[in-house]
Amino acid sequence: MPHRRSAFFVSDRTGITAESLGNTLLTQFDTEEFKRETIPFIDTVEKAQELAQRIDEVAREDHEKPLVFTSIIKADVRAALNIPSALVIDFFETFIGELEKELGEKATLEVGKAHGMSNEEKYDHRIEAVNYSLNHDDGVKLKDLDEADVILVGVSRSGKTPTCLYLALQYGIKAANYPLTPEDLGSPTLPKILLPFKSKIFGLTIDPNRLHFIRSERRPDSRYASMDNCRREVNEAESMFRHHAVPFISTTHKSIEEIASTIMHKAHLGRRF
Amino acid sequence: MPHRRSAFFVSDRTGITAESLGNTLLTQFDTEEFKRETIPFIDTVEKAQELAQRIDEVAREDHEKPLVFTSIIKADVRAALNIPSALVIDFFETFIGELEKELGEKATLEVGKAHGMSNEEKYDHRIEAVNYSLNHDDGVKLKDLDEADVILVGVSRSGKTPTCLYLALQYGIKAANYPLTPEDLGSPTLPKILLPFKSKIFGLTIDPNRLHFIRSERRPDSRYASMDNCRREVNEAESMFRHHAVPFISTTHKSIEEIASTIMHKAHLGRRF
Repeated sequence: MPHRRSAFFVSDRTGITAESLGNTLLTQFDTEEFKRETIPFIDTVEKAQELAQRIDEVAREDHEKPLVFTSIIKADVRAALNIPSALVIDFFETFIGELEKELGEKATLEVGKAHGMSNEEKYDHRIEAVNYSLNHDDGVKLKDLDEADVILVGVSRSGKTPTCLYLALQYGIKAANYPLTPEDLGSPTLPKILLPFKSKIFGLTIDPNRLHFIRSERRPDSRYASMDNCRREVNEAESMFRHHAVPFISTTHKSIEEIASTIMHKAHLGRRF
Repeated sequence: MPHRRSAFFVSDRTGITAESLGNTLLTQFDTEEFKRETIPFIDTVEKAQELAQRIDEVAREDHEKPLVFTSIIKADVRAALNIPSALVIDFFETFIGELEKELGEKATLEVGKAHGMSNEEKYDHRIEAVNYSLNHDDGVKLKDLDEADVILVGVSRSGKTPTCLYLALQYGIKAANYPLTPEDLGSPTLPKILLPFKSKIFGLTIDPNRLHFIRSERRPDSRYASMDNCRREVNEAESMFRHHAVPFISTTHKSIEEIASTIMHKAHLGRRF
């Protein structure tokens, strides 16, 4: 059995940031496997003490130091997680002093603070974007494309839908999508309905082998999924993008986060909340 | 005009982690406003040098140090971002040495490394979860609820759809949702169709005032949106959850991340990729 060390991602909120940065660090080490656990909402000294005790027990069972990645704002809660039998990596405490010095101001140390928009306003904004993206998935409502922040265009299964939803949830971007059908692909020009919105169009393409694999999972042995058809569709879509000088990226080896942030960057879009 | 300091979130990948942790730190300071910019995909020395020059120019224009939050893995790219005229907060370099020491192993310093599942496998898994959640939005396909990891139940506009999509995208969780209609709410028991899946049900509730506000945006002056009706529906839904001892949370003051991570935690769900 391979050696496995315990790693905890601990936060007073969702734990998403502590987990993400902690994992970035852990992927740099090859020989160890990690037993990972994310523990959100550690926002009182009592919860922190209870957790510290549990981690201390794990340390004794494992006969080695668990790694504890934390991003906790309140000083007393942080202090309760100062576990001698663990290696505690504190993403908050490490940097806050340096920032206080540079900004000439004490940190307020309040949890869940948000500047500007209220939580409710942010929520409403994201929901509006999600609803917009859901209602404009697969080109169902073309008449109000002028409201879109971006319109993703690509062949079936090139990654449009999850990318639109991620753009809406993560950035509050109203993302419509338009699937290029075999009929659209017969001509080298963009479908007429899209022409007025050319400046908002972003193309998605994909390696034909990968497309063949994805489509075969869905409709095995169909013309739709055949290697020949996938190759032809991808070629024609890319020609169309080039013909109109529409920017496009390949989704093949990218995570949804990478596709979305590339589009944000290349289309000069900013977070909407 | 209020004083505004420049803050850059710089990454060799998407920038989401650097931005998120950087913002957590910045929200602790009240008196300053920040000009924030996220710069992803700084993965070569050349790109880093170009950016360093730009940040140095900003420093001279601002007459004060820009804040630069980075999570860059390669040492030479990091070195190129060592900008004397800025305060550089390096999320990677600060901790990697400590981890190397504890783990008795040198960091591989490779960008985009992923242990276990390949990017493609992860992608497929998330897409499957997204498609599942889309196909089971608003209870449209009840026959295969046994495939769901979790079934969110709540009145119309209590936050089910965005939470399901977030659970699918962020955690690879197959999340179905069932909207409690006025007909369902007439009885104190869960709709019959849900009873076999009771153990997978998680309730969402919402403050009636907030629900009234959200519904009024959608259908002003309707019975659906009326304060009386919102209060009654929320009461009846909560009674139903209590009757069946179904766990439930209020979405009122929570972000989508907080709702989703609370459900992950309370329903003992684990990330699926």
